[in-house]
Amino acid sequence: MKAVRVHGYHEKVVVDEVPEPTIDGPMDVIVKIGGAGVCRTDLHIIEGQWDEAMHPTLPYTIGHENAGWVHEVGSGVTNVAPGDTVILHPTPTCGLCRACRAGDDMHCVQSVFPGLDGTNGGMAEYLLTSARACVKLDPATRPEDVAALADAGITAYHAVRKLIPLLYPGTTCAVIGAGGLGHIGIQCLAALTATNIVVVDRNPDALELAGTLGANEKIVADGSHVDAVKDLTGGEGADIVLDFVAEQGAEADGWNMTRPGGSYSVVGYGGELSIPTLDIVSTERNVVGNIVGTYNDLAELMVLAQTGKVTLHTKTYPLDAAADALHDLDQGQVRGRAILVPE
Amino acid sequence: MKAVRVHGYHEKVVVDEVPEPTIDGPMDVIVKIGGAGVCRTDLHIIEGQWDEAMHPTLPYTIGHENAGWVHEVGSGVTNVAPGDTVILHPTPTCGLCRACRAGDDMHCVQSVFPGLDGTNGGMAEYLLTSARACVKLDPATRPEDVAALADAGITAYHAVRKLIPLLYPGTTCAVIGAGGLGHIGIQCLAALTATNIVVVDRNPDALELAGTLGANEKIVADGSHVDAVKDLTGGEGADIVLDFVAEQGAEADGWNMTRPGGSYSVVGYGGELSIPTLDIVSTERNVVGNIVGTYNDLAELMVLAQTGKVTLHTKTYPLDAAADALHDLDQGQVRGRAILVPE
Amino acid sequence: MKAVRVHGYHEKVVVDEVPEPTIDGPMDVIVKIGGAGVCRTDLHIIEGQWDEAMHPTLPYTIGHENAGWVHEVGSGVTNVAPGDTVILHPTPTCGLCRACRAGDDMHCVQSVFPGLDGTNGGMAEYLLTSARACVKLDPATRPEDVAALADAGITAYHAVRKLIPLLYPGTTCAVIGAGGLGHIGIQCLAALTATNIVVVDRNPDALELAGTLGANEKIVADGSHVDAVKDLTGGEGADIVLDFVAEQGAEADGWNMTRPGGSYSVVGYGGELSIPTLDIVSTERNVVGNIVGTYNDLAELMVLAQTGKVTLHTKTYPLDAAADALHDLDQGQVRGRAILVPE
Amino acid sequence: MKAVRVHGYHEKVVVDEVPEPTIDGPMDVIVKIGGAGVCRTDLHIIEGQWDEAMHPTLPYTIGHENAGWVHEVGSGVTNVAPGDTVILHPTPTCGLCRACRAGDDMHCVQSVFPGLDGTNGGMAEYLLTSARACVKLDPATRPEDVAALADAGITAYHAVRKLIPLLYPGTTCAVIGAGGLGHIGIQCLAALTATNIVVVDRNPDALELAGTLGANEKIVADGSHVDAVKDLTGGEGADIVLDFVAEQGAEADGWNMTRPGGSYSVVGYGGELSIPTLDIVSTERNVVGNIVGTYNDLAELMVLAQTGKVTLHTKTYPLDAAADALHDLDQGQVRGRAILVPE
Repeated sequence: MKAVRVHGYHEKVVVDEVPEPTIDGPMDVIVKIGGAGVCRTDLHIIEGQWDEAMHPTLPYTIGHENAGWVHEVGSGVTNVAPGDTVILHPTPTCGLCRACRAGDDMHCVQSVFPGLDGTNGGMAEYLLTSARACVKLDPATRPEDVAALADAGITAYHAVRKLIPLLYPGTTCAVIGAGGLGHIGIQCLAALTATNIVVVDRNPDALELAGTLGANEKIVADGSHVDAVKDLTGGEGADIVLDFVAEQGAEADGWNMTRPGGSYSVVGYGGELSIPTLDIVSTERNVVGNIVGTYNDLAELMVLAQTGKVTLHTKTYPLDAAADALHDLDQGQVRGRAILVPE
Repeated sequence: MKAVRVHGYHEKVVVDEVPEPTIDGPMDVIVKIGGAGVCRTDLHIIEGQWDEAMHPTLPYTIGHENAGWVHEVGSGVTNVAPGDTVILHPTPTCGLCRACRAGDDMHCVQSVFPGLDGTNGGMAEYLLTSARACVKLDPATRPEDVAALADAGITAYHAVRKLIPLLYPGTTCAVIGAGGLGHIGIQCLAALTATNIVVVDRNPDALELAGTLGANEKIVADGSHVDAVKDLTGGEGADIVLDFVAEQGAEADGWNMTRPGGSYSVVGYGGELSIPTLDIVSTERNVVGNIVGTYNDLAELMVLAQTGKVTLHTKTYPLDAAADALHDLDQGQVRGRAILVPE
Repeated sequence: MKAVRVHGYHEKVVVDEVPEPTIDGPMDVIVKIGGAGVCRTDLHIIEGQWDEAMHPTLPYTIGHENAGWVHEVGSGVTNVAPGDTVILHPTPTCGLCRACRAGDDMHCVQSVFPGLDGTNGGMAEYLLTSARACVKLDPATRPEDVAALADAGITAYHAVRKLIPLLYPGTTCAVIGAGGLGHIGIQCLAALTATNIVVVDRNPDALELAGTLGANEKIVADGSHVDAVKDLTGGEGADIVLDFVAEQGAEADGWNMTRPGGSYSVVGYGGELSIPTLDIVSTERNVVGNIVGTYNDLAELMVLAQTGKVTLHTKTYPLDAAADALHDLDQGQVRGRAILVPE
Repeated sequence: MKAVRVHGYHEKVVVDEVPEPTIDGPMDVIVKIGGAGVCRTDLHIIEGQWDEAMHPTLPYTIGHENAGWVHEVGSGVTNVAPGDTVILHPTPTCGLCRACRAGDDMHCVQSVFPGLDGTNGGMAEYLLTSARACVKLDPATRPEDVAALADAGITAYHAVRKLIPLLYPGTTCAVIGAGGLGHIGIQCLAALTATNIVVVDRNPDALELAGTLGANEKIVADGSHVDAVKDLTGGEGADIVLDFVAEQGAEADGWNMTRPGGSYSVVGYGGELSIPTLDIVSTERNVVGNIVGTYNDLAELMVLAQTGKVTLHTKTYPLDAAADALHDLDQGQVRGRAILVPE
């Protein structure tokens, strides 16, 4: 089968002919890929930024945002059967550790991360995953339409869901970044809360889109945006700041536009947050980390998607054009999410 | 009456003769002081560190950790009467803003902070406060025995109470600093949870005391302490780190000894926390700020104190010896808490 | 001034000329009434049903759902001033007990309930209340348009708000009763959650209205409705049942249509719930009680109202026509809420 | 191997010679039983009370409270290996449904209940269970010493754990019944909270034991016990009532001794709870159901047991003497828990 592989850092990916995966363990599932999202993290992988953390052995197949149809299942699989339409949680988990038993999939002590840690990912015709990663969908769903929810979507949803108890009517949630993840996060906020949604972005087009997705206020990040958020909130700052950027100064801005008693929730990455501990305690503010989400988060998000409360902007490319899609993303030429679709 | 006042920064405090306070508003309460705690923050006030944040007009009376007996009440006061033994929440609050109506006293939009913001504090014979600050005590209580709970105690209790849901059996809570606040925090952890309490301190004597108060493991902060905490927790770090120091590198250590998915809770101050946002998101860790506590926190803590679950080590000084008490504290010559007692 | 008073049970109310209330305590507030809701509870008062529980001394002025303009304030009042438009929390509270300090206004140990417990209520030209009951509104608000939120609204909102954490996407919430409280509850569910809202009512007109307010499914309560809810939920029942009727068998139906692990939340009253304890434990279901709501609940609800997320159907009557309004309500001739408006 | 089987209702159990279980699926685990608890539910099974709910096919092996050593594992099992000492969660679960993925094992849609639903239980030399039921223990643990925690223990722990947020210092928790489950519940309350523990039981000996396990107040259930609880709580009732009896009137007493705003938590069964819905709403009280507990609950409880915070009183019988053990239990001649131990 065809697979998009990284052979070396700072090199173009290559579409190789490789053997199809085979069922090995009782909970294994092979999925025929219908759509594989192209993510900024894929660019970072190619740039070698994940080498130190994950030590993947090259070459391997990337793609960690996948949906498709079940092709073959192991002997112990009971939740899906060949032919089922599925979206895949990014990390097949053990199901037996404390974290898994608490529903906290991302903290499984034995999970793999296909497409990221050297395990082969989903930019291919077939992907080996596990029963525990499969969320079964309405058979009418086209995998290419929803694949981006498997990683971008679940991550935004997870961050929003944790904040719901803090976002009662009368609060303000400032969202930094209305791009791939941000535009899903805004829709999740609008679907799940009645908070006042204030979106901050450098790009006026992104703000305009945000307005159609539920943003109540739009602020151009032009250097006066921290003050602008404070002006909208009686000088205090937003109750919650949800930062999908968290680099190039956004992280300091995010903290500074958070009101006393509030929380600064971080989803983006790349920057460094530096805060005096006096500032933390005298205002009793919190910093909240977020990584991907749980299996149930993904299942819940698919309910929002299938009832039309979260929609995606996507642009499809044939699998063979993976390098083009990555190039377009790098050049800022993709509106919404690029999705690879095997023929 | 006598009052301990700051006349100038970097100068000794002076015991002045000043007029007694008088009832002005309907919710005012005048308390005859029985004990006023001497806190490291008082040293910081004298050093001028709070000048910028609070802009107090000099001279004024310090003392923000007070207990005594009700002396006189305003026309609208119904919860206490002259003669009642009381401990005082540090910040009289408005009772009408959103925060007050949610029980979140520290975030009242109109509170004052006697002894800190230029409002006269409790190192005096009488203190003007409000009905909302008074927690009524068993009349047998000696104010000097409990005064330190009014600020050091409530702060430690508040931080611990917020963490209870995260501290189920099988977890580890690392406590950095077993001094004034820390030794109360350890007792609160032992009273309210069954977590494994690991205490980290530079001072072996403080660790020994911690062992008698509920610490399960004691680690000398000698440079190998982050590794020592990881060794005790399967290499992962503590589920929760509760940092009563948060300066001079403790803040970096605290973050580094927090396990993925865990929370670093900050009570001390003075340092600067610097963390890459990638580190926050890839491990999904949180930073939790804490400031003093709520009125109900103080009332709950007094239940623990009156049932013997939290005890204090104190050393009393006459009010006239305030400068000596401050000097001893500055020189590290106070075990437990120094308490000023008017004659 | 004019006031609608109960002189005897099972008698028509009388519009009497009575003295205007006067400021007595420092936190007192006198409100010029702009709208006073007419509630089924008023009928029950007149029928004597509240006599045993509340022992009011007759005659007294009824009306516990009020909005208007501040007329005069006591010496200690800082949150409102004469001329302010306000909606009133039904129970002026002490602000000093544990419950008040936790924001749990309904469990204040010293509150009064004007219009219900013998304290004069708001079906009058002026009402004596307290600063703690006043929620300040946009001056453009017409009190008669929002008065019904002061009791019917807050009660529905409070019940929904407590359930939010249980109502994640993919759940079903069955609402029994789409009348006065129910039609507000449905709007709150739609504003604050993405649950699947299934409304059960005997009245097809009420169901039709429910459909326009956010109900996803409508079921006529014709005897097959428990089965109908089960059919919609894979045979299991609704995750949450929110019962605005709770009499005449609705309470048994409500419990029976609640799935294992779910909660049956009770707002209506009049019936008797009888369940084997084996049924409670073998299915691990809960019963949740609800009474009115907190001050902050009312303030939050007003945000929903002022952003158009909750709207009311009302019919106004002059204060002099109070007996007519009560008669019409009793005869089922009021769509939405009857509101008395002093000239 | 030997197995204790029910051949007919209202008949003595028989120790039969039956084939040993065999590994069938990849997640299967066979455990050599070291201790099997004898529970009042076993008496109810023999009396036919579970026939209607569970429809077991006779004969089958009872015993749902088991600990031992892993004997053999299926091909997909990674968490335990032959020789490991284990205690068993009562219900092997699917690991794939929404409930399992949320950690809510008792609400798994595909679980079995060995020893209760006709699946063979643990009063035998070997038991077939699944990897997901195994909690690995310190190898020094004697299974017979801890087996009773597998069902009695987990059930009490689960009920207490859910209540922790409500049991802050200053609250009162009334415990009805200090028998098998109750005496574990009291220890869990003392280990996990600082609430005031008031124990109500008919049996003065049980109360005396309760006093040594953490009860602060002991009340004989002699007809005046509801009043006695109210007298201890300022006339209001207990914040939480935890009822391990819930039959023969305890259920009405339990509800009646619960204060306004409080919760009545039900663990025992047999009675019928009848409450006017007016009573539920006018006091805003809740009823909480409880069934067994989660896998993580059991793991946490084992931490309490292994640190000595929860201890059990047990009496061992050889497996051949199962009928004697059941007889003694029925006759009230077992102090603590009867445990069957295969030779």
